[in-house]
Amino acid sequence: MAAVTAQNSASDLILFGTKGDLARRKLLPALYQLEKANLLCQQTRVIGVARDDITLESYQELVLENLNRFLKQPLEQDVWLRLQAKLLYVNIDLTNIEDFNQLATLVDKTKRVPVCYFATPPSLFGDISKGLAAAGLATLPTRVVLEKPIGHDLASSNIINDQVAEFFTEAQIYRIDHYLGKETVLNLLALRFANAIFAGNWDHNSIDHVQITVAEEVGVEGRWSYYDDAGQMRDMVQNHLLQVLTLIAMEPPARLDADSIRDEKLKVLKALRTIDISNIQEKTVRGQYAGGFVTGKSVPGYLQEEGAKSNSRTETFVALKVDIDNWRWAGVPFYLRTGKRMASKLSEVVICFKPQPHNIFHATYRNLPSNKLIIRLQPDEGVEIQVLNKIPGLGESMRLQETKLDLSFDETFKSQRIADAYERLLLEAMLGNQYLFVRRDEVEHAWKWVDGIINAWHVSNEPPKSYPAGSWGPVAAISMMARDNRNWEE
Amino acid sequence: MAAVTAQNSASDLILFGTKGDLARRKLLPALYQLEKANLLCQQTRVIGVARDDITLESYQELVLENLNRFLKQPLEQDVWLRLQAKLLYVNIDLTNIEDFNQLATLVDKTKRVPVCYFATPPSLFGDISKGLAAAGLATLPTRVVLEKPIGHDLASSNIINDQVAEFFTEAQIYRIDHYLGKETVLNLLALRFANAIFAGNWDHNSIDHVQITVAEEVGVEGRWSYYDDAGQMRDMVQNHLLQVLTLIAMEPPARLDADSIRDEKLKVLKALRTIDISNIQEKTVRGQYAGGFVTGKSVPGYLQEEGAKSNSRTETFVALKVDIDNWRWAGVPFYLRTGKRMASKLSEVVICFKPQPHNIFHATYRNLPSNKLIIRLQPDEGVEIQVLNKIPGLGESMRLQETKLDLSFDETFKSQRIADAYERLLLEAMLGNQYLFVRRDEVEHAWKWVDGIINAWHVSNEPPKSYPAGSWGPVAAISMMARDNRNWEE
Repeated sequence: MAAVTAQNSASDLILFGTKGDLARRKLLPALYQLEKANLLCQQTRVIGVARDDITLESYQELVLENLNRFLKQPLEQDVWLRLQAKLLYVNIDLTNIEDFNQLATLVDKTKRVPVCYFATPPSLFGDISKGLAAAGLATLPTRVVLEKPIGHDLASSNIINDQVAEFFTEAQIYRIDHYLGKETVLNLLALRFANAIFAGNWDHNSIDHVQITVAEEVGVEGRWSYYDDAGQMRDMVQNHLLQVLTLIAMEPPARLDADSIRDEKLKVLKALRTIDISNIQEKTVRGQYAGGFVTGKSVPGYLQEEGAKSNSRTETFVALKVDIDNWRWAGVPFYLRTGKRMASKLSEVVICFKPQPHNIFHATYRNLPSNKLIIRLQPDEGVEIQVLNKIPGLGESMRLQETKLDLSFDETFKSQRIADAYERLLLEAMLGNQYLFVRRDEVEHAWKWVDGIINAWHVSNEPPKSYPAGSWGPVAAISMMARDNRNWEE
Repeated sequence: MAAVTAQNSASDLILFGTKGDLARRKLLPALYQLEKANLLCQQTRVIGVARDDITLESYQELVLENLNRFLKQPLEQDVWLRLQAKLLYVNIDLTNIEDFNQLATLVDKTKRVPVCYFATPPSLFGDISKGLAAAGLATLPTRVVLEKPIGHDLASSNIINDQVAEFFTEAQIYRIDHYLGKETVLNLLALRFANAIFAGNWDHNSIDHVQITVAEEVGVEGRWSYYDDAGQMRDMVQNHLLQVLTLIAMEPPARLDADSIRDEKLKVLKALRTIDISNIQEKTVRGQYAGGFVTGKSVPGYLQEEGAKSNSRTETFVALKVDIDNWRWAGVPFYLRTGKRMASKLSEVVICFKPQPHNIFHATYRNLPSNKLIIRLQPDEGVEIQVLNKIPGLGESMRLQETKLDLSFDETFKSQRIADAYERLLLEAMLGNQYLFVRRDEVEHAWKWVDGIINAWHVSNEPPKSYPAGSWGPVAAISMMARDNRNWEE
């Protein structure tokens, strides 16, 4: 965790799927930003891999086009020239093991660490692994970065992980969950473990419940079939929401290294109370959006989207009441919700503290609201604490008001551009820091728990509840909280 | 503590010393503000008392002049007319008991509560009490409001309190410490007792130490002789700083009424560890300002002020390390400092929490700073919490920065004018709420403790330490903290 210098990260970054959506939208722009920040070692090379017989010049042009299209700022010519000089291109048919020998001739493991980014459909991860091994590139110090989704359930994820594990040890494998690269998610570690006022209150003695919301305004964005196979549970809960939950809930790790952190995260996943047919009604709400209005614009329902099958029961919204059966969190539910076509784009964690045991202000404030720590992950990153203060003024002796102690990242760190998650993750992979990547056992336990819920939904045979696009989900999600005498933070 | 209405406070407010400095600068403007806010009952009358044979019209003109001079905003004619209609004037020689009979003819206890404000030198409190009694005005429901200073030490304060107590019960007596009327001081109660995140951390388990600073830019302001008899210890510590300390340190009262609160404050005063000749060096620093620069302007030293005696040893600065020997605060020192001619005008309380027991960020932050809760009393009222957050940016993996969660009263309560302390205190006295007034036993215990320190200084025979005007006091005040491995919040 020492200061980052470009010097200790000389890499051959081999980009499988360099012409794919992820590489074009995220990875290549991220590399540009790293170059701009002088965080790419001068010796580092980026080796694009695709099945297309084009010249290096054509590839470079392609990258330049992508950057011009997807960078959110004007391209700087000198940065581009520096990045361009690092680019190489190899035409590989991933199913043709011979083709990988071209890589062997390019890569020099004694000088640079091969970092192989699998930005392809996971069905190809096995072939790529096999090809790299055949070319003699599977041994240390080679690292492989696996883009999600890794499987559709526990069984299919095991198949993919087994295919990769045949050639690579867990210490070589960097599984992406891009939420772990977000500045604000990383800041959860700082908030929790660098601040005694939070660390000392971070358990069932002080906390009443926790809310995690990841709301999207967008719908399926033209990917109806792909999305319909997954649903919100697989697409968002199994990875992102559970990752955030583990960071909030884990015991303090003794050190900040990958396995100290991941051991603690895993313990949380193991402590999640099973949700099955016996408690599926009580603990879950699933929804599917109907037509409605999002930010003033009329939008179709899920079943009316282009390419939709009209009988789909796939959920576009999930609300869960999650119990963590361990010493720290007994009796403290974690309420999770995530959905598409919600009222606004919002990711936040709300820590709701227990109320004061005794109210001496009852004459002017009958039910003292509880303190809240609100961690906004997006769109406007920040941290705020809701406290009660006395309202100035003579009119009433002791009138209180909920007020916010506020820290906006934008305001506070004005000079700092907030880096995209992929910049951080690419950098950490090149540096060999695994702590922001998901270990296999985490993936497995997350799938196991999620599979149980999906299975219970299947057995219960209840359709998802409808909610109008532009709302905060089905009424049932509100009722789930209301039964506990709580409500979602708005 | 119900909502305040003007209706339940019909008073005959008898203003002894109406031509004095306090009445002119503070009390009359405060009455104007109460009138403006419709918080003076229509039946309420303000009866000015002085020794001056003037007509009511002349008195009213005098009041109008004062308002025009001391109001910080343009006088509104309709408000003035309403207030004017309430004004009466009586010419009384306070040492002539007969004169008080004029009041008896004016006051109607069955319709209005007599609220007698003693805004005179305390040497006259006995005479006024006697006169009121002679006029049949000392019995319930009459209240008396005693302006500070009440005495110069325990003995002299007992004399004054005894003189008043001869005619009035403690339940009738409202002792002013205007700090208790400040919005931000009142907000201490709200912060502490309405917020579980603070209440649950408010003891030696969570708090490392507390700092209370009341710094003034001004010097003695032409009152050299008066000030020289008192010194900063009597002028500021015995009353204001100890009142703030008790509000910070007291056990939570079961109710918000006067005696529930004052009982708890008293317990703190009783638990203050004695400072005497055995520990005076360790626990106190006293200083006296030399010439220097305050906000860029050259100012003379204390001994060079107009009217100064060149051999005065009166302190214009005090720093104390106060131990509270009870279960809550064992091992948690309260550092107090107050002085004239300091670098800036600033009153604040800093709650310094204990550091994290274990630092997992040592690679990038060797000594994690502790969290702080900073309560600014003046000039810019507000509350802030200092926490550590991750600095956004890729340059270093986990670089932290101290950042502030901030609540500025000015910003948050924009529409609200912050009332002057005397407005609140006059109003509460007319409403019969004693909770913002100091009980006799509080005064006594405060004096007893302060007398001990002043006596030890006398015995030790050390002169006060010099500090340049415009600084934060003698170097010894910094050393006192440094010995404990701490430092003053800057």
